[in-house]
Amino acid sequence: MQNTSSSSPSPDAPADGPDHLFDRAVALEPVGPDLFRGHTHEAWANMVGPFGGTTAAAMLGAVLQHPAKHGDPLALTLNYAGPIADGEFLIEARPVRTNNSNQHWWIEMRQGEEVLTTATAITGLRRETWSETESTPPAVPAPEEVPPASEDRGVRWIGNYDMRFVTGGWDDVAEGEGAPESTTTMWIRDRPQRDLDHLALASMCDSFFPRAFLRLGRPVPAGTVTLTIHFLATADEIAAQGSDFLLGSIHSHRFHGNYHDESARLWSRDGTLLATGTQLMYFKG
Amino acid sequence: MQNTSSSSPSPDAPADGPDHLFDRAVALEPVGPDLFRGHTHEAWANMVGPFGGTTAAAMLGAVLQHPAKHGDPLALTLNYAGPIADGEFLIEARPVRTNNSNQHWWIEMRQGEEVLTTATAITGLRRETWSETESTPPAVPAPEEVPPASEDRGVRWIGNYDMRFVTGGWDDVAEGEGAPESTTTMWIRDRPQRDLDHLALASMCDSFFPRAFLRLGRPVPAGTVTLTIHFLATADEIAAQGSDFLLGSIHSHRFHGNYHDESARLWSRDGTLLATGTQLMYFKG
Repeated sequence: MQNTSSSSPSPDAPADGPDHLFDRAVALEPVGPDLFRGHTHEAWANMVGPFGGTTAAAMLGAVLQHPAKHGDPLALTLNYAGPIADGEFLIEARPVRTNNSNQHWWIEMRQGEEVLTTATAITGLRRETWSETESTPPAVPAPEEVPPASEDRGVRWIGNYDMRFVTGGWDDVAEGEGAPESTTTMWIRDRPQRDLDHLALASMCDSFFPRAFLRLGRPVPAGTVTLTIHFLATADEIAAQGSDFLLGSIHSHRFHGNYHDESARLWSRDGTLLATGTQLMYFKG
Repeated sequence: MQNTSSSSPSPDAPADGPDHLFDRAVALEPVGPDLFRGHTHEAWANMVGPFGGTTAAAMLGAVLQHPAKHGDPLALTLNYAGPIADGEFLIEARPVRTNNSNQHWWIEMRQGEEVLTTATAITGLRRETWSETESTPPAVPAPEEVPPASEDRGVRWIGNYDMRFVTGGWDDVAEGEGAPESTTTMWIRDRPQRDLDHLALASMCDSFFPRAFLRLGRPVPAGTVTLTIHFLATADEIAAQGSDFLLGSIHSHRFHGNYHDESARLWSRDGTLLATGTQLMYFKG
């Protein structure tokens, strides 16, 4: 996470480091106590406004560069309250309570007087304890054996990821028949490659297309209303990931009355469960 | 949900209606704009402070009795920031954005200047859409065929529920061997019986004992840090439940570095998935 970059490369020239398009999308400048200014980036455009993953990462980024920050991210809940216009936004990040081992944050994104996104985050210190993973990754081919997915899905931000669908891919949406169940399993990494950190991991938790598309066999109006991320790995484990592919798997429990949930897990290639992402999505169909 | 009751029965005389001990634990009195006063109830005491489920319900209750409320609960994220002392508390519930179909809430519980619990909630209108449940309940015996669990677990709030463990019950904790996996499946309803509503459902989402107890085969220091509830059923479906048992099933994905997650689903007896509860818990062990 860095503030503004002193160089100004064109948006078409992604690179490693502070000029990577992901870092540029989540770059924040401190502009007052608890207050940060950011800017949407055209390379991350979604149907309306920016990709929600970069919004999540920017909100968490305000906490991580706050001078009062205590510990590493444990949990983040994002509530997408309204569309974000292209351009500048302000993020207010305020520690509401600091304990010995953890800290509770209130975060709000605004443009003018309008609240666009709210969030709470918890950061904390971790010590070694008994450790066990019950949720092991599904048996899948290595990412090198799976073709990269088409970028032709009508939204620009897709191009910033190398996604490789193992099951429940975009073809199952495009073919129009609808899948019998909502699971998508895919490999994903930044394109160009970038070392994983909490911000990139948060963003990837929101990188799956809506499960309603897969079940209905067509894109329908849909959008995330709220997203909760639990970081189940330590900062060391996240850093150890480097720029390798993550394996993500997501499914829904129920679709009903304009809303459906989504439950995602993201593992490292060696089976370390890094995070879960739990969403409630609006949909029509 | 009602405000204060005009009668004053003893705490040992639970009853239906506003005198039910659950209603008394979550009763709030409006004391200013966006501001409500409540009081912990001794019948819901946990190891330290009140049971987190009634705290969750009281926070949501402030939204439901707010004059600006728009729609029914869709999602609630509770962050338990610090211990609640026995006695009075204030809840501030503020609508931060109201859209045509949904509304975003910021909620904070305080005693004096200290923030004890923060939350966000989303309420909304729902219309009929394509509907499907992928997550069906496990095959279990009817609640009438399962003995009620012992109330002897060292905390008083347990007595307000009729819990019937199907798998992963308290015996597996008490026997000290540790279970090979973290799933508990149980029937649960209020004792005495009470018609289900969003508040009672929210509370039941927090009624499972910590998964670390089950895996380690002993109670260890543990507590919920954050709980996210997604209401996957409409208000009509929740009301149709009446006072019958719900079936709940919960498990963890990973235990590591002082924290573990928990993922719960709650169904009606006829298999309607009413809600999911997703937690991050602190634990030592």
